[in-house]
Amino acid sequence: MPYYIGDVIKEEKRLIARTPEKFRETGIDVRIDTRVEEVDQKAGRVRLAGGETLPYDILVLGTGTRPLMPGIPGEEREGVFTLKKLTDALRIKAWLKEVPCRKVIIVGAGFIGMEMTEAIGNLGIETQVFHRGTLPVNRWDPEFSKAVLAELERHQVGFVTEVEVRAVEEGKKYRLRLVTNRGEDEADMILMAVGIRPETELARRMGLPLGKNGAIRVNFSQRTPQEGVYAVGDCAESFHRVSGQWVNIPLGDIANKQGRVAGRNIGGGSAVFPGIVGSQCFKVFDLEVAATGLDEREATQSGFHPVSTLVWGNSIAGSMPGNKKLGLKLIAEKTTGKLLGAQSVGEAGAVSRINTLACALWAELTIDDLGWLDLAYSPPFGGAWDPIHIAAQQLRRQL
Amino acid sequence: MPYYIGDVIKEEKRLIARTPEKFRETGIDVRIDTRVEEVDQKAGRVRLAGGETLPYDILVLGTGTRPLMPGIPGEEREGVFTLKKLTDALRIKAWLKEVPCRKVIIVGAGFIGMEMTEAIGNLGIETQVFHRGTLPVNRWDPEFSKAVLAELERHQVGFVTEVEVRAVEEGKKYRLRLVTNRGEDEADMILMAVGIRPETELARRMGLPLGKNGAIRVNFSQRTPQEGVYAVGDCAESFHRVSGQWVNIPLGDIANKQGRVAGRNIGGGSAVFPGIVGSQCFKVFDLEVAATGLDEREATQSGFHPVSTLVWGNSIAGSMPGNKKLGLKLIAEKTTGKLLGAQSVGEAGAVSRINTLACALWAELTIDDLGWLDLAYSPPFGGAWDPIHIAAQQLRRQL
Repeated sequence: MPYYIGDVIKEEKRLIARTPEKFRETGIDVRIDTRVEEVDQKAGRVRLAGGETLPYDILVLGTGTRPLMPGIPGEEREGVFTLKKLTDALRIKAWLKEVPCRKVIIVGAGFIGMEMTEAIGNLGIETQVFHRGTLPVNRWDPEFSKAVLAELERHQVGFVTEVEVRAVEEGKKYRLRLVTNRGEDEADMILMAVGIRPETELARRMGLPLGKNGAIRVNFSQRTPQEGVYAVGDCAESFHRVSGQWVNIPLGDIANKQGRVAGRNIGGGSAVFPGIVGSQCFKVFDLEVAATGLDEREATQSGFHPVSTLVWGNSIAGSMPGNKKLGLKLIAEKTTGKLLGAQSVGEAGAVSRINTLACALWAELTIDDLGWLDLAYSPPFGGAWDPIHIAAQQLRRQL
Repeated sequence: MPYYIGDVIKEEKRLIARTPEKFRETGIDVRIDTRVEEVDQKAGRVRLAGGETLPYDILVLGTGTRPLMPGIPGEEREGVFTLKKLTDALRIKAWLKEVPCRKVIIVGAGFIGMEMTEAIGNLGIETQVFHRGTLPVNRWDPEFSKAVLAELERHQVGFVTEVEVRAVEEGKKYRLRLVTNRGEDEADMILMAVGIRPETELARRMGLPLGKNGAIRVNFSQRTPQEGVYAVGDCAESFHRVSGQWVNIPLGDIANKQGRVAGRNIGGGSAVFPGIVGSQCFKVFDLEVAATGLDEREATQSGFHPVSTLVWGNSIAGSMPGNKKLGLKLIAEKTTGKLLGAQSVGEAGAVSRINTLACALWAELTIDDLGWLDLAYSPPFGGAWDPIHIAAQQLRRQL
């Protein structure tokens, strides 16, 4: 009988909170708000925070990630948040409403920061993003990052660049003051969205090997090198099918898949997690932002010789009324023409293109394939030549 | 110097009409409204309708399709239309506006008929579809056809089933009367959308071989068996990568690609048209309808043993506000698990799923691949388990 350790996803948590008996009926002892302090592998027992110990045959680590903090004075003040768990979201929601919150500063311009600008902006609360770099979402090409920045500006979200945060103090006009190299700014709430790391404290103490990315090493069955110990989700590594390397990409869909693979293997079946290609997307206001595979830097680090092209098109055919701007970048290996990665930003159709290209990466298609790919054409959804075709045929000339 | 025979696409026609000199400047003699009556292959000359003859080295047939008529008395009456060319659309547009048209009957429930219900319905004109079968768009699973029918009904489009048309007469209340096995109905306009056939009269007289689908036989370079004669687009065959058969699927994106392949080969380069997988989509009011690959009947005819599954999901994650219904059907080969086809209908995301699956067909992926495919996940665009994953894992149990 396995015990599931770590955070459960939103829907599961709700389910558990509502129907704890349901799990007991099936013979599964699910404990929430329970911290495992230590694992005694010889005895096959876990020790909980309260001192109680429980026996196990199989141990699954699903300890997830922990959000990083900048490590500055005052960062523990009330009103400074990170966003990782459901309870974080509930606490933020309460704060926004009850304080009441007139202005929010978001530190960090990754996809969590971007999604939060929309969530907070849509409540009509003034929002400012403070970023250490010059453009948001550095996974994407600067041209696409600029499109994201323009979308923020279009929705009155401030964007302050090249910021080093130094301290959080008590504010005068607002509750908090953020001290940076750029001066002092006040807000009623500060969200620290500066990154996350795999939560592997327990794994480390168990002597489980970690990858250079800090995540728990697993094989394609989600087994760790220790007999009877599995790891799944954000705390574990995944095999990247394009780079051929083991990576840590903490995303919910990957965690779901790995959980199913581990569960099937534990349950006596047989399942293999065939890896990932690095697909990711988010929405910020009216913009879809998506990417898959490797960018040029990652491709070079993985031993490839990347070439790339970036095209702007329309996700509605030119013969139709309306215009929905869509940008697509393709990255390919110079010698073989094999697709290595893709990025897209658009008012519509960006996620759709990236999912098609994620499938192309999975199947190791080349730019030649993509130039002639038989996509479903109809004017409301694109031109007879899709941006995928146009970019692929354009990139082919560079090989 | 090649002469291009046949219809030019909308954008090209506009371009030609506006800037005839442009083509002459580049040394290309483009003639519009010009009919080639006969080809003298020995002499290398074409004879035009007016009697003039022109020499050629290379001949490209792009004669497109001709719309079918039911062959009933009165079908030539003013107010009875087919829709194939730009000029048809312009004539229909004028008729709708100037008559003025209060009611339209569309005969046929294929995708052209469906697209026209929206175009006419959006003008606020009463519309009725008369169909020989019981459900629209028979390429799709009856469950999806029912969703299309519900969408028509939601937009007050009438749908009359099991109709045999018998005659078009002069109307009393409206301009025209359609006599059918179901009685008599009147309208100011009747659109015959009962199918199309490749226009191959000229090819036939030239002795070019036609496939059993009636289209001109070509190879992967778009060459016909006759030296210096090419055929491209709706009048020509395409290689279907899934069935392994030569088919005729008259769609604009295929025509564009074949045109480019022929052009490159004629121009001294080298290009191959790698075939199609049968992708298609259309929009009817607020519904996306898309398909790719083979349906069960086609799969069986091609020697496969198909199994299939159909799932209903949501193109927005359950944790998000809003709900956009999305249905997906997958068809696979029972012994190998190879994907054979897919169909989708939804308020959003149907075309996106079909394009991803078109790529999967192109690459000959299996249901196992699709069950774990790394798609870009974010709640505004779907759940952590996409309908593709759910359908694939469900279908796997049938293998």
